[in-house]
Amino acid sequence: MQHGCPYGTHRVLEPKGVLPQPAWKIDNTMSLWDNEILIDVDALNIDAASFTQIKKASENDPARIEAAILDIVAQRGKHHNPVTGSGGMLIGRVAAIGAALQGKTDLQVGDKIATLVSLSLTPLKIERIKALHLAQDQVEIDGQAILFESGLYAKLPTDIPEKVALAILDVAGAPAQTARLVRPGDTVVVVGGGGKSGTLCVYEARKRAGPAGCVIGVSPFAKDCERMQELGWVDHALQVDATDAVAMMRAISDVTQGRLADVVINCVNIQHTELGSILATRQRGTVYFFSMATSFTAAALGAEGVGKDVDMIVGNGYAKDHAVYALELLRESPRLRTLFETLYV
Amino acid sequence: MQHGCPYGTHRVLEPKGVLPQPAWKIDNTMSLWDNEILIDVDALNIDAASFTQIKKASENDPARIEAAILDIVAQRGKHHNPVTGSGGMLIGRVAAIGAALQGKTDLQVGDKIATLVSLSLTPLKIERIKALHLAQDQVEIDGQAILFESGLYAKLPTDIPEKVALAILDVAGAPAQTARLVRPGDTVVVVGGGGKSGTLCVYEARKRAGPAGCVIGVSPFAKDCERMQELGWVDHALQVDATDAVAMMRAISDVTQGRLADVVINCVNIQHTELGSILATRQRGTVYFFSMATSFTAAALGAEGVGKDVDMIVGNGYAKDHAVYALELLRESPRLRTLFETLYV
Repeated sequence: MQHGCPYGTHRVLEPKGVLPQPAWKIDNTMSLWDNEILIDVDALNIDAASFTQIKKASENDPARIEAAILDIVAQRGKHHNPVTGSGGMLIGRVAAIGAALQGKTDLQVGDKIATLVSLSLTPLKIERIKALHLAQDQVEIDGQAILFESGLYAKLPTDIPEKVALAILDVAGAPAQTARLVRPGDTVVVVGGGGKSGTLCVYEARKRAGPAGCVIGVSPFAKDCERMQELGWVDHALQVDATDAVAMMRAISDVTQGRLADVVINCVNIQHTELGSILATRQRGTVYFFSMATSFTAAALGAEGVGKDVDMIVGNGYAKDHAVYALELLRESPRLRTLFETLYV
Repeated sequence: MQHGCPYGTHRVLEPKGVLPQPAWKIDNTMSLWDNEILIDVDALNIDAASFTQIKKASENDPARIEAAILDIVAQRGKHHNPVTGSGGMLIGRVAAIGAALQGKTDLQVGDKIATLVSLSLTPLKIERIKALHLAQDQVEIDGQAILFESGLYAKLPTDIPEKVALAILDVAGAPAQTARLVRPGDTVVVVGGGGKSGTLCVYEARKRAGPAGCVIGVSPFAKDCERMQELGWVDHALQVDATDAVAMMRAISDVTQGRLADVVINCVNIQHTELGSILATRQRGTVYFFSMATSFTAAALGAEGVGKDVDMIVGNGYAKDHAVYALELLRESPRLRTLFETLYV
């Protein structure tokens, strides 16, 4: 067995010297390098944007959809849609573990896993397509794939339905990062506290801040505020539009007697909420931006512009053991599990 | 005189209800509200990313550069580059102080000050451009500007030449934030360590990391690497293109025996250096993005894609007392002062 790069650059065919994701073509030979994991694939969960494009280009003809999927993998060695640039993830079972990873991974041959890295960088070989589930963007296949040494995965639990597990794994970074940020007694604001990742942050913030802390959920929607109240993990559910920075500052100031928040966690996928988050934070407090709609310059210049000496953190979807952490939350809180089983599957 | 909002929302023209920085257009009428300060402007220090973009778009033609600067201010009421989203700072003399600020500010009419809030939120009127200093990103003008009640400023010292003070105040946040980040014994990479803010970060990192630490400067330019070597604050000056993520990782891995950096400070005003910075950082290390060319999504998705559990921080140009801190560096290090006197004025 040869020793590979942890990031899989040893499988990049063209152009040379780049990482597997930006590469046009990667080597999908299923002979294992010593720091790779071989997976027998059950199903591909194709990225929604990618599958929509394939279905449209194939005029919803199953035979042509199958041909399009096989063609992408034949051309690129990975399911990396050249039109949308996106991939998806896969579910399968561990078939073999490279020698260099023996004793270094918690995986065992036979474990059922979901990959948490994109199909757009995952070496894949499809022997045959067994079933298309067009409404679910899912393709059942006979085939194999490679997980690089740096590749993220989650062992799928036996006590949680697969779809519920996948729904929480999608936002697993949020509660894990909240757990690191929030200390007992903290005042925590979760902007978008009624959404999927926001609810997890509120739940985790409540646990960490404890009885002496104060957790404030913010949403522009009455329905979200009602749900936050019902779930019972917030001290205040404030119906405020976070794009109105001055309104945000006043609302948070009102319920904290002017002290503002120690930690603000931003989970709303809308633009222009940077300043509202900054103004809700006390001097030397922390703003955690989970929203992909965050503008780097709006945050950096916004804080400087209002003279706020705050630490602003770029939300990292990965934190060590985040999948284990997220799945455990569903066992810990029946209320959270019911929410995910009814709302997010 | 009318009473204004401390953050200047009373001057926002469009869209209504936002703060001056995210606003597209603000009112640059030079009649004073009662909590504003009027400044007679001597010079603008344009943000490096912004000036680079303007120079490139104008093909380095001085007449076209002047027109571009005037056009931005005419359109927006502030020097807020619509492409880069960034601004800069200014130097001038206090011309008038609003009635509500009398006795509340230490400023007097005639004081020479530098504003420490971004030009991207500062009402500005340019009567004429007197001189362009392309290499210094400086523009001498006849004009006026407004400082809001919350606006930060520094009185210019008498023992440091004005242009030298201005040059260092423009990047005053960099050494102050570096001082907070770096601990004794740390391995620190400064991407763009040969530039203005980069040099300050290298200097400060050397002080904080101490003799047991390791400071690594990175630049794609041989000249920058030579300067870093001559200044003597780096252990290694590596000539590497940070947009080549794999090359960055290998270069930093080579000089750290595979341990990578505890702290990476990114000071280069070019795009696509996020992944290179992330790959140069050890697991649980910190990446500090000072570059205004940073893409939030490239950082967030990049770290997740390669499974790097790193803290990524949005560079905040303001840290409490950063101006006092930065100016003191010039008194502390004759070599640094000579560099600023020869290279950045």
